[in-house]
Amino acid sequence: MAESMRLLWGSGSPPCWRVMIALEEKNLQGYESKVLSFEEGGHKSPEVLEINPRAELPAFKHGDNIVNESAAACLYLESQFKSQGNKLTPDSPAQQALMYQRLMEGILLTAKIGYVAFYDYYYPVGEQHDSTMKRNKEKLTTEFKLWERYLQNVSSGSYLAGPFSLADVVVFPDIAYAFRFGLSAERYPNLAKYYNLLKERPSIKATWQSEWMATAQGDDALKDI
Amino acid sequence: MAESMRLLWGSGSPPCWRVMIALEEKNLQGYESKVLSFEEGGHKSPEVLEINPRAELPAFKHGDNIVNESAAACLYLESQFKSQGNKLTPDSPAQQALMYQRLMEGILLTAKIGYVAFYDYYYPVGEQHDSTMKRNKEKLTTEFKLWERYLQNVSSGSYLAGPFSLADVVVFPDIAYAFRFGLSAERYPNLAKYYNLLKERPSIKATWQSEWMATAQGDDALKDI
Repeated sequence: MAESMRLLWGSGSPPCWRVMIALEEKNLQGYESKVLSFEEGGHKSPEVLEINPRAELPAFKHGDNIVNESAAACLYLESQFKSQGNKLTPDSPAQQALMYQRLMEGILLTAKIGYVAFYDYYYPVGEQHDSTMKRNKEKLTTEFKLWERYLQNVSSGSYLAGPFSLADVVVFPDIAYAFRFGLSAERYPNLAKYYNLLKERPSIKATWQSEWMATAQGDDALKDI
Repeated sequence: MAESMRLLWGSGSPPCWRVMIALEEKNLQGYESKVLSFEEGGHKSPEVLEINPRAELPAFKHGDNIVNESAAACLYLESQFKSQGNKLTPDSPAQQALMYQRLMEGILLTAKIGYVAFYDYYYPVGEQHDSTMKRNKEKLTTEFKLWERYLQNVSSGSYLAGPFSLADVVVFPDIAYAFRFGLSAERYPNLAKYYNLLKERPSIKATWQSEWMATAQGDDALKDI
C-alpha cells in the first residue's frame, strides 16, 4: 500500500514531520520519500507544484488522492488505515472530543509560533514594528500557558487526549520545534516532560528531523516566551 | 441527545455558523442555543470563559465534552452521530481525501479573508501599511482563484468533495461571508453558483445568520479581490 504513496518534504518543518509520524504509526514504511530544500526553493519546484499548487511542503499523494494539508493527511491516513498499525483515534467520546479540539488548536499554535519565529521573514523591514512583535510574543506566551495546562496529567502518562492520538501527531512537532528554538523547560515543565516522553516513541525516533539532529539547539527566537 | 448540548455563538460569524449547520445536518435540533454580541464583548463573558478559555465564539459543549474549535466540533459531531441525520463523510477514499484536504484548506481561507476584512481591527493605525494590505489582497485573490477551480464541476452538482460533506459545512460560511462583503460574482462564477445552490439547503436556510438577513449587502471590503 505504501508503495503507491509519495511524500515530498522539507527537513525541520513541523507540518512535514506530522505526516511522517502518521505514516510510521500506521505501519506505512516504504513510501517514496524525497527531501527538498526550502532554502534552495525546492518547495516551488515543478514536482511539488504538480501535487501542491500552493507551492508548499508537505506534498503528499496516495495513488491519485492528494492530501497536502498536514492535519488533513493525518486524518485521511487514520481513516483509510483504521485497523493497521497503531489506533490513533480513542474510543471514548470524551477523548475523541479532546482529540479533535487539540488537533485543531494545534493549527492555531503553529500560526502563533510562526508570527514570532518568522516575523522578520513574513514582513519587509519597513513594515516591521517592535510593538507588533511584542504583542505576538505575549499572545504566544498565553498560548503556551494553555498547552502547559492541557498537559497537566502528562506525568501519569496522559497525552493530549489521553492515549497517544492524532492530536499528538499534529502537536508534538510544534512542541519539539519550540524547544529547539529556545522555549524554556523551566517555565513549561509539563511541555518539557511531554517532549521528553514522546521523543523516545518509535515513530518519532524513526522520523527525527535531520536538520535538528546535527546540533542540539537552534537559535533562541522563543527564549523569552 | 441534543438536550445535553449548549452552543454559545455570535451572529455573522462563519465559525459559529459551521457548528449550527453541522447540528442541523445531524438532526440535533433542540440544543440550548444562546446568541451573544461581539460588539458588547459577549465573547469575553464568564459563561463563555467557562467553556472556552480563549474567549472566542463558538463555545460548544456536549454533556461534559467541550469542543470549541469549529472544525473540530464538526468532525466530532459527525464521528459521534455517524448514522443520524445526513452522512457528512463520503465513502470513497478519493472523496474522503478531498473532504479532509478542503476542510483544512478552509481554515487557511478563513485566515486570509480575515487579513483583509479585519486588517484595520487587527493592527493599530501606527502599524498599518498600504503595502501589507496590498499583499494581503493579492494573496486572497490567489486563494479565491484556487477555490474557483476546486468548484469547476459545481454545475453538475458536485460540491467540494462530491456529495455535500464536512468540507462544505466548514467552507460554505466563508463563501457566504465573502459575497456578503462584496466578492464579485462575475469574477468567481463557480463560487457564485455554489453559494446560490447551497443557500437553499435546509440546514443552511434554517441557520441563516440573522445579522446578514437584515440587509442584502455588507460593506465592500472584498469588492476588488
